[in-house]
Amino acid sequence: MLQSLSIRCDGEQIWLLDQQSLPALERWIDASAPGAMVAAIRALQVRGAPAIGVAAALCLACYARSGAAPDAQREAAAALRAARPTAVNLAAALAPLAPHLPDAAALWREAEALFRDDVALCEAMATHGVSLIQPGESILTHCNTGGLATAGVGTALGVLRLAHARGLRVHVWVDETRPLLQGARLTAWELDRLGVPFTLICDGMAASLMAAGRVQRVMVGADRVAVNGDFANKIGTYGLAVLARFHGIPFHVVAPSTTFDAACPDGRGIPIESRPPDEVRGYADARWAPADAPVYNPAFDVTPGGLVSTFVTEHGVGGPEIFSARSPSSAQSR
Amino acid sequence: MLQSLSIRCDGEQIWLLDQQSLPALERWIDASAPGAMVAAIRALQVRGAPAIGVAAALCLACYARSGAAPDAQREAAAALRAARPTAVNLAAALAPLAPHLPDAAALWREAEALFRDDVALCEAMATHGVSLIQPGESILTHCNTGGLATAGVGTALGVLRLAHARGLRVHVWVDETRPLLQGARLTAWELDRLGVPFTLICDGMAASLMAAGRVQRVMVGADRVAVNGDFANKIGTYGLAVLARFHGIPFHVVAPSTTFDAACPDGRGIPIESRPPDEVRGYADARWAPADAPVYNPAFDVTPGGLVSTFVTEHGVGGPEIFSARSPSSAQSR
Repeated sequence: MLQSLSIRCDGEQIWLLDQQSLPALERWIDASAPGAMVAAIRALQVRGAPAIGVAAALCLACYARSGAAPDAQREAAAALRAARPTAVNLAAALAPLAPHLPDAAALWREAEALFRDDVALCEAMATHGVSLIQPGESILTHCNTGGLATAGVGTALGVLRLAHARGLRVHVWVDETRPLLQGARLTAWELDRLGVPFTLICDGMAASLMAAGRVQRVMVGADRVAVNGDFANKIGTYGLAVLARFHGIPFHVVAPSTTFDAACPDGRGIPIESRPPDEVRGYADARWAPADAPVYNPAFDVTPGGLVSTFVTEHGVGGPEIFSARSPSSAQSR
Repeated sequence: MLQSLSIRCDGEQIWLLDQQSLPALERWIDASAPGAMVAAIRALQVRGAPAIGVAAALCLACYARSGAAPDAQREAAAALRAARPTAVNLAAALAPLAPHLPDAAALWREAEALFRDDVALCEAMATHGVSLIQPGESILTHCNTGGLATAGVGTALGVLRLAHARGLRVHVWVDETRPLLQGARLTAWELDRLGVPFTLICDGMAASLMAAGRVQRVMVGADRVAVNGDFANKIGTYGLAVLARFHGIPFHVVAPSTTFDAACPDGRGIPIESRPPDEVRGYADARWAPADAPVYNPAFDVTPGGLVSTFVTEHGVGGPEIFSARSPSSAQSR
């Protein structure tokens, strides 16, 4: 049984902790059918660039093991790959499976390795990233980049978790992250479980905290990183990067090299997913804006690499070149 | 009968359009009793720095006319003045009434004049402010600064309304303005009624619109302006000012001279109201964060005057000195 905070897979079936129901309800859903997995990815019941890659690969392997016809497997692979256009991990995770279609045993080996690799990538990122943090710092983060977003301890949140575990007395400012409130719902829930001190804020409050000297560092994840270091991440990230620069606050991106897109020279090549207007008109069943209010709802924004102080990958800490670095101990060396 | 978009007063009673119920429900509440008015101000059923000043003054006058004892009137005046600490208009509106306590007729004259002055101030600001706007611009605004926030056409929104009426083909980006969503609920509702083209966004989306060249101007109101031009406004305003500066976009503050606090040399002297944590943990009856999540919830932030391109008051357009300018046609000349 493969088990992470949000994914369970026994090689036949895959279940997801429904992230749209958290924190009110801890509900596991069966996403073994590729159609169910695509729907779960679109509805953000599973989310986080690394997690959706791992979940989609496991789903495809389970589908093959269930005896699906080769053509059906190929259709499933294409549908899974298209479920979220911005996160490059989804395509990257499915790529090593493609040559093995429809060999169920080989697909399962690849998917299982991907899961275990992601756990190792998270550990490596946390170990490198924690070197950046000084005792007593308050660190601001956006969206959710923890155990719910990966198969392991997370990206940016994995670093903060390790800093806490090492007794560095960190405090985390959690952006609520409108419109889907991944910060308020998921990051707050994770940090609460882990016992990491945090304070929840609305996205518009970060700037005044920075001006007051109450933010020592900003740490976020990424959904896709271009060759020049431009990166896509949850909408609101770019504004934080500008604010951090204005206030002289270090801004770090923590992401595995699976998030790197060598085919993308800069941020202009990153497709940005638009999402339904009702996500902005309210939240879940609550509606507060006029029912027909025109809405702009991009799921991501692109931050120029020049606003990033350092990237943290499984290979270490550095500029965008760190994504293509290779170290002997790399979890990607397989 | 005095009547604005959100205030009705017949000299005996005062009713408020409950802004916490908008846009779902257009419900008028009786706020004639000073205790009811204080509660309505605290609950943001009436809000907007100019509107709460006018409403509090009318309430006090009605209370006096109802035969309240002199001591009760004085207690009511003190309670009304303390209802929201950041908005200086509240104290400024009640100040000219104080010498007339408990003379009901004189109090009513002052309160009625205040209402009519606020209408005139809004008209004057709109006329001056519209000179800044070029045809076809997209202008970003925050919170609600329209007819709901004043006795007249509003401050920043009054300018945009006039620009639309003059055929300047403006489009308004409306920040939803978490936590209380005055943009999503109130500004969207007002612009929809007025037929002004707008698009609703989450607060974290403004930066990427600026980077894409889709914002030509930012226009906001103010709750208190210090002598050096530092000003308090709805939380999130300061971040917008930094983002506008970074992107080279003009940033304007539209506020009547009643918002100016000559006793406040700079922003450090402006008290910032903290509001209940549940406002950040959810909205109205909806709760999405963990129930005990620690929260930081300042209602306002302070923007340095140096980030403001120009101020617009009833006297004209200029630097912070425009607040203390006196013109022969000033609506404040009474």
